[in-house]
Amino acid sequence: MNNPRRFAKPSRQFGLLACLAVLSLAAAGVTTADSLLLKEQGSFFVGGRTIYTDALTGNKDGFLGRGVNNGHITVDQMYVQYQIPEDAGAHLPVVMLHGCCLSSKSYETTPDGRMGWNEYFLRKHRAVYLPDQVSRARSGFDATLYNEIKLGKRPASDMPEIRTATHEIAWGLFRFGPTMGKSFANEQFPVEAFDEFGKQVIPDLNAVLPSPNPTWTNLSGLAIKLKGAILMGHSESGFFPEQAALINPADIKGLITIESVCPALNAAQISSLAKIPTLVVFGDHIDDVPAYADFWKDRFESCATFVEQEKAAGGDATMMHLPKYGQFGNSHMLMQDKNNLQVADLILKWIDEHVEDKKK
Amino acid sequence: MNNPRRFAKPSRQFGLLACLAVLSLAAAGVTTADSLLLKEQGSFFVGGRTIYTDALTGNKDGFLGRGVNNGHITVDQMYVQYQIPEDAGAHLPVVMLHGCCLSSKSYETTPDGRMGWNEYFLRKHRAVYLPDQVSRARSGFDATLYNEIKLGKRPASDMPEIRTATHEIAWGLFRFGPTMGKSFANEQFPVEAFDEFGKQVIPDLNAVLPSPNPTWTNLSGLAIKLKGAILMGHSESGFFPEQAALINPADIKGLITIESVCPALNAAQISSLAKIPTLVVFGDHIDDVPAYADFWKDRFESCATFVEQEKAAGGDATMMHLPKYGQFGNSHMLMQDKNNLQVADLILKWIDEHVEDKKK
Repeated sequence: MNNPRRFAKPSRQFGLLACLAVLSLAAAGVTTADSLLLKEQGSFFVGGRTIYTDALTGNKDGFLGRGVNNGHITVDQMYVQYQIPEDAGAHLPVVMLHGCCLSSKSYETTPDGRMGWNEYFLRKHRAVYLPDQVSRARSGFDATLYNEIKLGKRPASDMPEIRTATHEIAWGLFRFGPTMGKSFANEQFPVEAFDEFGKQVIPDLNAVLPSPNPTWTNLSGLAIKLKGAILMGHSESGFFPEQAALINPADIKGLITIESVCPALNAAQISSLAKIPTLVVFGDHIDDVPAYADFWKDRFESCATFVEQEKAAGGDATMMHLPKYGQFGNSHMLMQDKNNLQVADLILKWIDEHVEDKKK
Repeated sequence: MNNPRRFAKPSRQFGLLACLAVLSLAAAGVTTADSLLLKEQGSFFVGGRTIYTDALTGNKDGFLGRGVNNGHITVDQMYVQYQIPEDAGAHLPVVMLHGCCLSSKSYETTPDGRMGWNEYFLRKHRAVYLPDQVSRARSGFDATLYNEIKLGKRPASDMPEIRTATHEIAWGLFRFGPTMGKSFANEQFPVEAFDEFGKQVIPDLNAVLPSPNPTWTNLSGLAIKLKGAILMGHSESGFFPEQAALINPADIKGLITIESVCPALNAAQISSLAKIPTLVVFGDHIDDVPAYADFWKDRFESCATFVEQEKAAGGDATMMHLPKYGQFGNSHMLMQDKNNLQVADLILKWIDEHVEDKKK
């Protein structure tokens, strides 16, 4: 699809009629507080390549047992779901990418049923694009290698690691509290809905991906397709916006790295990234979970170093450690925390001041 | 989450302000044809159970190499994305379930960029719920067995089949034309966007599921959660609405089976399903693809038999073979065909006449 905005128009008067209906309701004293007015929504794919496989299924008798087990399939494509509010104006779209063992669900309704960042950003007049990482969720993955093992064409030891997280690991690693079942006094994650959070955690097959990760290339392609976008990544994907910009900075207008590791870069890479406004966000209790204190301290410091390097190279880079911005008790899943909309406001303010004001 | 409708209200005047803005645009001669007014949207999970695993990852050194490879994970949950239009009134919500090797993307923007059924049904005043099948896409899957093989705890022969479809199989099986690359003269599938369709095809891990398929149980749970719903299934999931109703018919108000196989049922099962209005839909060219002529003829006849059995048991069952309803050239992916909105109109008319009129 070349243009995701090309839509049939089955109901020309719909917008106006719906408005009149809402105004009538308003006149009748009925609140319209929850209404969301969209200019457009939909989904599409970025990237993807066609490969030949001779292990289409793990069934020796082929697909549906009909003898065919070879042919062409598409792999490395990235699914993207999007919504554009009626009042986006000149605001840049925001692309929100999820982390390990998760999907775009991260940014939707929170585990305890509150509004997620996808809807909040829409209500703040931003088009929102939600990709599922390549090899995850609706983007699918290349199953050839698994089927080759099933068919005895390769040894089981060739199987890439499939990664996921237990409830116990998530509780500690995501800093819901110091030990399983115990939360911090000022914990912002809705731990009463922890069971619902557990349902978001799904297997991560990134280990099967080629290098460079096709998600990086596809993020770059998405920014170009959108003719300008702000890229946001979280955790596993926290540095994916930067990786996309290192492949091709075209149309990447802002980089937002949330709770991630920032790898060491050479001077040319730093210099290239310094041309794009960059925000790094970390929550609270960085070294307050004993089992993961070093883990998070290392990550925080790697990104603090990255921010300083960017600044030294003349870049506009900001380290937003939330407690220093008046937000306390935030977990690793800060887009789902009870103060998630206040954190979103800080990010929106950064976008307005550091990315969009500069457009003028 | 007990109530997916519980939302924060960050902008009380949003609906009214947005409307005024749209009316201003309209007064200025700008069309608002595409606007979509939503009362609410979000996502949640149905079902899921907690299990213990000692093969959390395929890494002998455990998660992130930190030594832990056991603990509790959630499996069998079903992800559901939903939107409720402002003007749904008393209309029943419609649950749209996708088929083999696909995700809910089936019902979104078509491969050639037209409106999908999810948005069209919204514009026709229906709340729409899009689940990803358990073990697919954002619902995730239980990776324990794969990791046990990787870790050498089980033989590779224990691996369940992973199923997907090649481009060549999809073209024939989905009746885009008689042979690869050749389409029927009246073909409705947008074959010019076949490459984009190929990106929707993702691995199907249903073979790893326990019995009964948790998607059936979760569909029943979803109908109950919604206090009444119409369930629609397609292809692999075509009979899942009926399977859900056989587990528990509570709050399942209508059954829509699209392009599927209808299994043989006993008298008690037929009698139970006959209490719920049932629609079976098939496209065109049932036996016009030589490689799959028997395949589709068998399926069509199995469902024709099911419809007759339902009628004989006093049920309200309809076989909608689209050419008999004036729609020609439809493929297996009829929700993406060029006349997809006309086909949707036929289904909406059936809902109005056979399900909703009976509520009165």
